[in-house]
Amino acid sequence: MISQSTVISTSTVISTSTVISTSTVFFASTVSALTRVADAYERMRAVDRPEVWITVRDEAEVRAEAEALDARVAAGEHLPLYGVVAAVKDNIDVAGVPTTAGSRAYSYNPVEDAPAVARLRKAGVIVIGKTNLDQFATGLVGTRSPFGAVRGAWDPTRISGGSSSGSAVATALGIVDIALGTDTAGSGRVPAALCGIVGVKPTVGLVPTTGVVPACRTLDCVTVFARELRLARQAAEVMGGPDGVDPLGRIDQPAAPLDAAPVVAIPTPEHLEGLAEGWADAFARVVASLAASGVQIVEVDIAPLLEAASLLYGGAFVAERTAAVGDFIDTHRDLIGTDIDSTVAQIVLGGAEAKASEYFRDRERLERLGLEGLRRLEGTVALLTPTTTWHPTLDEVAADPIGANSKMGKYTNFANLLDRSALAVPAGVVGGLPFGVMLTGAPFADRTLAQLAERIIAPDVDLLVVGAHLRGQPLNHQLIAAGGSFMAEVKTAPDYRLYALATTPPKPGLARVAEGGAAIAGEVWRLPAAGFGRFVASLPAPMGIGSTVLDDGHTVSGFMCETVALQGAEDITAHGGWRAYRQSLAS
Amino acid sequence: MISQSTVISTSTVISTSTVISTSTVFFASTVSALTRVADAYERMRAVDRPEVWITVRDEAEVRAEAEALDARVAAGEHLPLYGVVAAVKDNIDVAGVPTTAGSRAYSYNPVEDAPAVARLRKAGVIVIGKTNLDQFATGLVGTRSPFGAVRGAWDPTRISGGSSSGSAVATALGIVDIALGTDTAGSGRVPAALCGIVGVKPTVGLVPTTGVVPACRTLDCVTVFARELRLARQAAEVMGGPDGVDPLGRIDQPAAPLDAAPVVAIPTPEHLEGLAEGWADAFARVVASLAASGVQIVEVDIAPLLEAASLLYGGAFVAERTAAVGDFIDTHRDLIGTDIDSTVAQIVLGGAEAKASEYFRDRERLERLGLEGLRRLEGTVALLTPTTTWHPTLDEVAADPIGANSKMGKYTNFANLLDRSALAVPAGVVGGLPFGVMLTGAPFADRTLAQLAERIIAPDVDLLVVGAHLRGQPLNHQLIAAGGSFMAEVKTAPDYRLYALATTPPKPGLARVAEGGAAIAGEVWRLPAAGFGRFVASLPAPMGIGSTVLDDGHTVSGFMCETVALQGAEDITAHGGWRAYRQSLAS
Repeated sequence: MISQSTVISTSTVISTSTVISTSTVFFASTVSALTRVADAYERMRAVDRPEVWITVRDEAEVRAEAEALDARVAAGEHLPLYGVVAAVKDNIDVAGVPTTAGSRAYSYNPVEDAPAVARLRKAGVIVIGKTNLDQFATGLVGTRSPFGAVRGAWDPTRISGGSSSGSAVATALGIVDIALGTDTAGSGRVPAALCGIVGVKPTVGLVPTTGVVPACRTLDCVTVFARELRLARQAAEVMGGPDGVDPLGRIDQPAAPLDAAPVVAIPTPEHLEGLAEGWADAFARVVASLAASGVQIVEVDIAPLLEAASLLYGGAFVAERTAAVGDFIDTHRDLIGTDIDSTVAQIVLGGAEAKASEYFRDRERLERLGLEGLRRLEGTVALLTPTTTWHPTLDEVAADPIGANSKMGKYTNFANLLDRSALAVPAGVVGGLPFGVMLTGAPFADRTLAQLAERIIAPDVDLLVVGAHLRGQPLNHQLIAAGGSFMAEVKTAPDYRLYALATTPPKPGLARVAEGGAAIAGEVWRLPAAGFGRFVASLPAPMGIGSTVLDDGHTVSGFMCETVALQGAEDITAHGGWRAYRQSLAS
Repeated sequence: MISQSTVISTSTVISTSTVISTSTVFFASTVSALTRVADAYERMRAVDRPEVWITVRDEAEVRAEAEALDARVAAGEHLPLYGVVAAVKDNIDVAGVPTTAGSRAYSYNPVEDAPAVARLRKAGVIVIGKTNLDQFATGLVGTRSPFGAVRGAWDPTRISGGSSSGSAVATALGIVDIALGTDTAGSGRVPAALCGIVGVKPTVGLVPTTGVVPACRTLDCVTVFARELRLARQAAEVMGGPDGVDPLGRIDQPAAPLDAAPVVAIPTPEHLEGLAEGWADAFARVVASLAASGVQIVEVDIAPLLEAASLLYGGAFVAERTAAVGDFIDTHRDLIGTDIDSTVAQIVLGGAEAKASEYFRDRERLERLGLEGLRRLEGTVALLTPTTTWHPTLDEVAADPIGANSKMGKYTNFANLLDRSALAVPAGVVGGLPFGVMLTGAPFADRTLAQLAERIIAPDVDLLVVGAHLRGQPLNHQLIAAGGSFMAEVKTAPDYRLYALATTPPKPGLARVAEGGAAIAGEVWRLPAAGFGRFVASLPAPMGIGSTVLDDGHTVSGFMCETVALQGAEDITAHGGWRAYRQSLAS
């Protein structure tokens, strides 16, 4: 039983389809790329998180690019990712924008897009900037950067997770629709968990790493963050396929579709110890919910996989980081502590003395641990784990930069070492912070994992907003913080009246009437169920959430207002909507 | 157009089938395992090449094993390789026989067969001993062993090739039907070429290397030598499949069948320079013959592949040898020059200082060279090259152990580094020594390469012998030296008379008669066409080769005798055959 999400199609008819492209083709029809770009820059300014970005592209230049796209689409061209606004981690080349990998001294000016970026752009994606990262993609915390520690999306006293820190936060805060990261130890998954978004880590080799500054070249992969799984998967599909330059490029292989009653492994209890407070319970809830949906759960002792994971930094494998940027750091030792992060330098140079013969011994040990660990997973379609183990504050990481970091990769570190596909998805809120789980599977099982993840991610909820939550209005940020995505400008069925309430900030009240109603303008936003739940729980009186009928006959969630608040409120129905009413006041 | 070879089936009916199993099922029907084992030990003693063996199993013990096999087959059991006599390179475990890897000090006593050996034995193969090798499988010459340099099969002043030296010579001299080798740089192919036999090097990971002393663990594979390609392939098939212990084990993948007009690459002329005298012409003849058979030949500049090949010993990859046996050599430095070969020690310890970071840089260089080299081969089914570049004397190798060796791996070294399947086959005789060519293809293309190789190996010739060339008779070694395999005891059609000629050694003359003929006993031997040609060319008067009709109506090649020599010769037809006649003289 695959859970179905409602998707708004090009004609804003609500359908119950799992087709990925529908929601993005939608972008092409109702909102111009120019509008989306303008919204993105506005949102970037509104959230005031300068540490997210290393380079923001000139807005006028990007607007011109968006207008050119709009013109092409207006002329009939089909672009599968038309108008999707993206950020790119600053270790991936975007033509004409410096690639720093987190170091000004290392910076160079690429003349070509990395193939991953070029393929997205060809599909209609607009890149607005390059994001901050743990320098040289070495870290899972997001604090190891001379461009500043990237603060958590939900709580700025906590870390964002890394190394793809800026990309995750830019996505979680709703500045961009998708953002590219990279993942060697877990850099495309840990920040997704800590920011409450989706992180797709494809099988190594499916997305070319040409034009990507290597961390551990043979283990690196390009990843996608998004608030919506299907959009992230679609971006991964668009980026996939050998480019003839990356020698590790692999041709995708068809994966078996998901069984009706798939078997999913979870760690035996001893391997779930030491999680942040409340996370074990949250994980148990995810497991129970999956089991209730028909998934067969088996407990597996994953000790060999965790031991394999420890080799990523504990063995000679770290010398691949030395091979990548060790010479640069070695010849710029005077910059350590300023442009070069001290912890990163310590790690990268730490691989300089490792012998090649040690590497070969470690590699054999890794392979034998992997063989045993994967043997134990035979017959399962995926391993389900928490994505990471805790969500430290910035201060906790500053106090113990390596120790705090190393705890975070417990469940992620082995994936690329052992050629696994993986996917991190949000799975609830614990103590006001996002909690995320991860599915790790066989190489080329990427699509199967996504199908399975649909069962974990509760179906999204489409919510009609008609007042202070509209784009550009004072409470819009609440929708984005809840993981919402703007879907469409719509009208209600002609059965409603709109009132201006005496609230601060000013809000409208929408009320269905038996007769004399009108169609009221609003916006549909799509929220993940958990975010929607938080949002509803936090609504102050007199507001509530019920359901509203749109002019196409479909019903979505929508605002209600206590009757008491409508008494004596001004009837503003004649304006047709809140924006028009507010403009009438301003003029 | 696949060339067809004649195959003698279980009923000794000559058929024109390409079915692999027929010729080996044959073993089960006409000659007992006990007889085959007895013949093997007799042959071993006759050729007097003690340096071929490190351990010969006790003959009585092996005879008992053969008798047990015979009993099982008599009871109706089917064993696909019943009675195939084998030797095993002494870096592969055979239970109860020491594994030395070429060093007495390193030696250990395995309690289990390597899975490759166990699978062969389960299929009916009888192992008679463990063969000499370049110590720790490090070398392509066959001289780097404290157990003695293995002399060439055809010319004992020349090298056998290595590292699987003893296995190749034991096969070429007809002691065994098949022999296992290993191949990292070319150890399963170079000796095949220098000994005039077939060397099958499967895709890395298809045959488990569990129970094999590693040379470069991630590049090693178990190989098969045989005089017959189909028997070698059948053994490789029997040995294939993951064993759950070798972490590099891979499941075989179906390969596309050979096109009607396959495209085969050959090196551009500059990469065929420096070959031994006459070898370029011999290679050109193979190419011309393939082209005449409908193969499309394209010249490819293989410079990137040859550069990649140079990394096997020129880069940090050699540290994998250090990881394997470096500690052993380092702690037994007092044995260098006696039990430990000086050249091998120099090579293995030469990897001790290589840094892991250098390995990662070399690996990237290898991958980029490989990508470019393989891109140039796109659209071809295989690369055809000479297997090696020259055939030095033992003295030449002694004078320059590393230099002489390094020339030999020119075309072989890149195969395992770049995950290629490969196959070495005899392709003629130059200056009285075997010349061999090699097909190198994609991973899992092993069967396709074998199909293609059938076009290179001229069809085998079945020859009836009735006198001094019978098993156990004084000239039998000539058939084995020509690459022949004993196939069946047969009788001629009842149209012949047999005469004892006045030759030295004594030989019979067989003559067809219009009436009054009888059925004469003999043996059918199968010779490769090149070997058959050499054999015929070397026959002294009054002998010649014509054709003979067997009692089942089929015609094979057979001996003729000049009429002049029959005049006055004793008619011994009444004895029914040469053996009976000779026995009558002895009694």
